[in-house]
Amino acid sequence: MQEALEYVKRVREKRPLVHCITNPVTVNDCANMLLAAGASPTMAQHLMEVEEISAGCDALVCNLGATSAFEAMRKAVSAAAVAGNPIIIDPVGAGGSSFRRDFFETLVKVAKPACIRGNFSEIQALAWKEKTVTGVDAGQNSLSLVEKDRLVAELAERLGCVVIASGAVDIVSDGRELVHNGRGDCWMTAITGTGCMSSALLGAYFACGKEPLQSAGAVCRVMGICGERAANKARARGEGTMSFRQYFIDEMSLL
Amino acid sequence: MQEALEYVKRVREKRPLVHCITNPVTVNDCANMLLAAGASPTMAQHLMEVEEISAGCDALVCNLGATSAFEAMRKAVSAAAVAGNPIIIDPVGAGGSSFRRDFFETLVKVAKPACIRGNFSEIQALAWKEKTVTGVDAGQNSLSLVEKDRLVAELAERLGCVVIASGAVDIVSDGRELVHNGRGDCWMTAITGTGCMSSALLGAYFACGKEPLQSAGAVCRVMGICGERAANKARARGEGTMSFRQYFIDEMSLL
Amino acid sequence: MQEALEYVKRVREKRPLVHCITNPVTVNDCANMLLAAGASPTMAQHLMEVEEISAGCDALVCNLGATSAFEAMRKAVSAAAVAGNPIIIDPVGAGGSSFRRDFFETLVKVAKPACIRGNFSEIQALAWKEKTVTGVDAGQNSLSLVEKDRLVAELAERLGCVVIASGAVDIVSDGRELVHNGRGDCWMTAITGTGCMSSALLGAYFACGKEPLQSAGAVCRVMGICGERAANKARARGEGTMSFRQYFIDEMSLL
Repeated sequence: MQEALEYVKRVREKRPLVHCITNPVTVNDCANMLLAAGASPTMAQHLMEVEEISAGCDALVCNLGATSAFEAMRKAVSAAAVAGNPIIIDPVGAGGSSFRRDFFETLVKVAKPACIRGNFSEIQALAWKEKTVTGVDAGQNSLSLVEKDRLVAELAERLGCVVIASGAVDIVSDGRELVHNGRGDCWMTAITGTGCMSSALLGAYFACGKEPLQSAGAVCRVMGICGERAANKARARGEGTMSFRQYFIDEMSLL
Repeated sequence: MQEALEYVKRVREKRPLVHCITNPVTVNDCANMLLAAGASPTMAQHLMEVEEISAGCDALVCNLGATSAFEAMRKAVSAAAVAGNPIIIDPVGAGGSSFRRDFFETLVKVAKPACIRGNFSEIQALAWKEKTVTGVDAGQNSLSLVEKDRLVAELAERLGCVVIASGAVDIVSDGRELVHNGRGDCWMTAITGTGCMSSALLGAYFACGKEPLQSAGAVCRVMGICGERAANKARARGEGTMSFRQYFIDEMSLL
Repeated sequence: MQEALEYVKRVREKRPLVHCITNPVTVNDCANMLLAAGASPTMAQHLMEVEEISAGCDALVCNLGATSAFEAMRKAVSAAAVAGNPIIIDPVGAGGSSFRRDFFETLVKVAKPACIRGNFSEIQALAWKEKTVTGVDAGQNSLSLVEKDRLVAELAERLGCVVIASGAVDIVSDGRELVHNGRGDCWMTAITGTGCMSSALLGAYFACGKEPLQSAGAVCRVMGICGERAANKARARGEGTMSFRQYFIDEMSLL
């Protein structure tokens, strides 16, 4: 907890520039969440500028919901790797689209990412290289907690990076160690964008931290804390999910 | 009213997966409105995945504001028809763009939609196959109420589906019967997205209902009720249109 | 001040149709801000319709964040010029992307804009035709206030239009006169979209005013006033940046 709040401070001091290639559904939320955290977002994906921009930033976040920008992601990942910037990949929708799973495999061959974050069904789809759900929902799952832990750790080991499977309990692993995060609120799944915003924030935290597993765990905890506070506030006022969303980003700016 | 609330319950129980190919202006609102209603949104429009995704969903919503995704809509409509999923078309902007009117005619030839929803000027542009306004606004109109009713009913009959012309009074017809909805608030036109969100919700309601005219009427009523409650709340607090928008989606999540 | 409020009234009366070709990050905010001001937004950028739509509108706003729509902007600018509509250009990101600076030069050759609005680093990048920052941030700057004034005035003179460099103090010039605006709040930089929304609003104000420098100054003042009120409200309630954003647009609707 103390450690997580240390990151909050560090991001505000360094104000890392985070290049996001992300989907239009939640791109505004991602930009506002990064600003609320004290980071500086740049959302650019044209082939003619993506390398110049990524090379000048402190981290790159590729969200596979931006399907029209896959070629741009390839170029950006390559430029970010040369610049030594951490690369975050959010395989949103990979559970239901073979096109996205295939592209994921292509992308991790261009350069090694620092972190992969998705909900469990997406992470499972990457691990098993097959369809797990339709749509972007976490869905039901018959695996036990131990089996889930192992799946996340094995994918992390195979990819040589940190893997986060978001859920009621977030599972985080770098292939050697496992971290769990139980902070958060069920309303975080009642709005669109919680996952995308977490991935965007990972860009900021990885740009400010030396230990990947710690940076990843800190994002899960800080997002969880903001989610809890926002949900409590919305419920106390008899408000609904959109008010929750507003307070969610509010809480990040107030930390 | 009782009937409309029956749908609210049904959507929360079935949690239909609604595939939306929609415009970037309001795509976030559409996703959050569907989530607030208890449905599960999927916003995908890449040619390489759109058929796979649409076939696995429970309904398809094509919003003609997504002009760059017209080819994707064709493929999705075809896949949705094969899967037997209801297809909703929102001809946003058709009043002012011959490109959109032409594409509409192309799209309804690929497969028969279950429902078309637009504001009156858009519906009129489809019926008359000519320009009615510039921009996306409802604009003025010299037709009498009886003439408007007839226009909607005739378009519904020609297309063989339900047609909704949204307005101060919504006109809904399947070509045989007419339904009017007077619920709602003028602030619903003071924000962007009310129409798009209604169309997205139609996907969820048609996925959960057997009777098309009833499903369409229920969306109009439920949106109207949420709009009234949200406007009353914002006005009572001396707040403006963005607060209204937040409460609008809040109310859906609280129903 | 009195003059600025005169514009508020005029926009509500005329309800100008503003065609925005803008980026997906803040397109929803721009549409809602225009609606809150009483204008009517149209966000269209397909090559097949952009000329038809722009010709029928009252103003055109080109935001260089919409990198995929550069060809559409060219066509729209040309159509808007023929129709005699004011053209606003927002060179967002031009400080960090040579692609955007080059395109800016192309665009101003198609037709003379009425107004260019960016943050100071973007305006500086256009004036010096070189990279000033990475990302979209205003960044630090070593120029004195007098030097900044001169830079803005000289660019305005070269381009033959009004230039606005937004900042803690907005600098506005038509190449002959200089206007400063000190209204506003630092929280306006804590959310994404303040600049884009200002540019969108410029479309509405230029469509309703005869004197360009006055129209530009009025937008700066009105946005500043709304920003101050919204920030005071959010702070008084102990709320954060997203609540501020909501109140920001709220205040425009309540003016």
